[in-house]
Amino acid sequence: MFNFNFHIPTKILFGQGKIAHLADEISAYGSRVLFCYGGGSIKKIGLYDEIIEQFSSKGIFYQELSGISPNPRIEEVREGIKLIREHQLNFILPVGGGSTIDCAKAISAGAAYQGDAWDLVIGKAKPQQTIPIGTVLTLSATGSEMNGGAVISNMETKQKLSLGSPLLLPKFSILDPSYTFSVSAAQTAAGTADIMSHTFENYFSLNDDAFLQNRLAEAILRTCIYYAPKALANPHNYDARANLMWAGTWAINGLLSAGKNTDWSVHAMEHELSAFYDITHGVGLAILTPHWLNYVLNETTVQRIATFGTAVWGIYTDDIYETAKLAIQKTSEFFASLGIPMRLRDVGIGEEHLQEMAEAAVRHKGGKIDGFQELGAEDVLAIYKAAL
Amino acid sequence: MFNFNFHIPTKILFGQGKIAHLADEISAYGSRVLFCYGGGSIKKIGLYDEIIEQFSSKGIFYQELSGISPNPRIEEVREGIKLIREHQLNFILPVGGGSTIDCAKAISAGAAYQGDAWDLVIGKAKPQQTIPIGTVLTLSATGSEMNGGAVISNMETKQKLSLGSPLLLPKFSILDPSYTFSVSAAQTAAGTADIMSHTFENYFSLNDDAFLQNRLAEAILRTCIYYAPKALANPHNYDARANLMWAGTWAINGLLSAGKNTDWSVHAMEHELSAFYDITHGVGLAILTPHWLNYVLNETTVQRIATFGTAVWGIYTDDIYETAKLAIQKTSEFFASLGIPMRLRDVGIGEEHLQEMAEAAVRHKGGKIDGFQELGAEDVLAIYKAAL
Repeated sequence: MFNFNFHIPTKILFGQGKIAHLADEISAYGSRVLFCYGGGSIKKIGLYDEIIEQFSSKGIFYQELSGISPNPRIEEVREGIKLIREHQLNFILPVGGGSTIDCAKAISAGAAYQGDAWDLVIGKAKPQQTIPIGTVLTLSATGSEMNGGAVISNMETKQKLSLGSPLLLPKFSILDPSYTFSVSAAQTAAGTADIMSHTFENYFSLNDDAFLQNRLAEAILRTCIYYAPKALANPHNYDARANLMWAGTWAINGLLSAGKNTDWSVHAMEHELSAFYDITHGVGLAILTPHWLNYVLNETTVQRIATFGTAVWGIYTDDIYETAKLAIQKTSEFFASLGIPMRLRDVGIGEEHLQEMAEAAVRHKGGKIDGFQELGAEDVLAIYKAAL
Repeated sequence: MFNFNFHIPTKILFGQGKIAHLADEISAYGSRVLFCYGGGSIKKIGLYDEIIEQFSSKGIFYQELSGISPNPRIEEVREGIKLIREHQLNFILPVGGGSTIDCAKAISAGAAYQGDAWDLVIGKAKPQQTIPIGTVLTLSATGSEMNGGAVISNMETKQKLSLGSPLLLPKFSILDPSYTFSVSAAQTAAGTADIMSHTFENYFSLNDDAFLQNRLAEAILRTCIYYAPKALANPHNYDARANLMWAGTWAINGLLSAGKNTDWSVHAMEHELSAFYDITHGVGLAILTPHWLNYVLNETTVQRIATFGTAVWGIYTDDIYETAKLAIQKTSEFFASLGIPMRLRDVGIGEEHLQEMAEAAVRHKGGKIDGFQELGAEDVLAIYKAAL
């Protein structure tokens, strides 16, 4: 096990009705709030009204930043920063899924930065000072509610990149699974694929003897596999929604990666798909994952993939390669069973930019993807092609 | 899944050599330290010298409280409080296992309390203000390094009780597995039993649909089962020590219990054994656990115990009771294989106080133990007798 630090001071308020504590939690940090949300689903479920009423009864001043995109744009970040400065806001409340929360994080870092916020995304500058954030989660997927990472897109330059800092950890996050009752089947499926992909990225690594972390990862994977079909069959199944939500948080808050050496290969490849085609992140991950695993299956990796097959899918054969291949097949079939389109062409991606995207994927990782197996541009291209 | 809050701001520094950061971490909170430790094993492994040298080079004033007992006594707590007041100390550094850390927590709460510290243990008063704590862990067992709980004994009144508060969460904990290389076989075994018992207490509950938490618990149990024999066979096996240490932390920091309804039946019964006979806590837990599971095995509990058998021990039979019974037997055999004495009489406990202890166990839980299955004094007595 490699050395690591683990420090997640985010306070989680989990369960139905926890929103009642929102204003009190905010008040510990600020009283002038940037209230961020996306397309307005929070109005349909009554969450918007509940929040506004708390603001009004507790005398909290707020400004709204609405319409944040599924892959949040740097323009939206800039807009939020403008609002913060104009109204001297001192707290940011994203209410939504990972996109809204990520946008809020970039605003948090950008508001105290003198230059353009895009500098922080491309790594030209590092977050030094931030504005405190508290989140209300309405989608189980990115885990952004309990980590310091954010992914921001620039459609102009076709870049989708991440920034991260412990300073961006939310002060608190309210996780009420009932807010996800109204999440569509497609988003539930894509969210589950996202959670599982985060877990895979942490799980598939070599030579780290992080036995505990790998068993914890399998626990999260099995939770997703058990509950995603239940959530699709009955969107109001509270326990299914609760388990998926809590699994999503722990898939990517540092517990699974602590003590390991990971490089997030599939995310690196998928970010280019989203950057070029603006597809749903979780769908891109689901499409690429089985092709990536097939591509990297070799003498070094077969044991871990086979262990995955046995521990997660209950596959026992007398041939380790057979077990590994069945595990990959089961994974692909599972995603398909959730209704996820499983080919790039199904989401409108053709051959036209494959080469360009493959080169960008590798370039954005500093020349190579150095994860479970090292990948150069030609490897990424082969995986893209297999996924067409 | 029940509603819960989850908030563990403790910063973990994990791995070999992390002690190098000790003085810097302390300096964020104070400069006058109560340095607590137990029987002096920290001198044998060079840790004492390393710490003193950092204190001296960074100008940190310190007072020592040494010789803290395996089941820390209220007298030792009072002594620490006296040192804090006499020397205006503003930070507490326990270096050792759970006993030393627990003693430090009681000192932390007691120093700012006007009355006698025992009031805080018996619940007559609640911790209001505390002195910050940072820990250096040298034994994988109690998980005290990342939670707000402490267990303190009063040998005079034959009481072993716990206090807990989020205010008592360590600010940081340094977890260097190599400090546990010199832990004896008996202590390694008892520590493992302690970790597994914490996991059992969180795992064996009913009707909570905390699927994820239960799978995470199984991951921790399997880690203990895989690595404890390795640590015994080769005490210097770093990965075995690292996995056991990290498993111990997560068995009892709130992750496994979040969203569940647990009542810590075996701990309630064991605390009386330690209070009356001062036996090693982990040994008492190992002895009682199989007898408790046998006693509570019935129509309501059989499914969970059988699931435990299949998920943790790989037992598959066509009879759910058979699977559950084999699981209990395997657990008992495992503890015995670690060299743990598995009968009360083996640790010097006879029939003389069984009745008295059974009544005290139930009384200290407010009249009954309300866990996996409700237990009254006669139930506890039956379990003690079966364990004789």
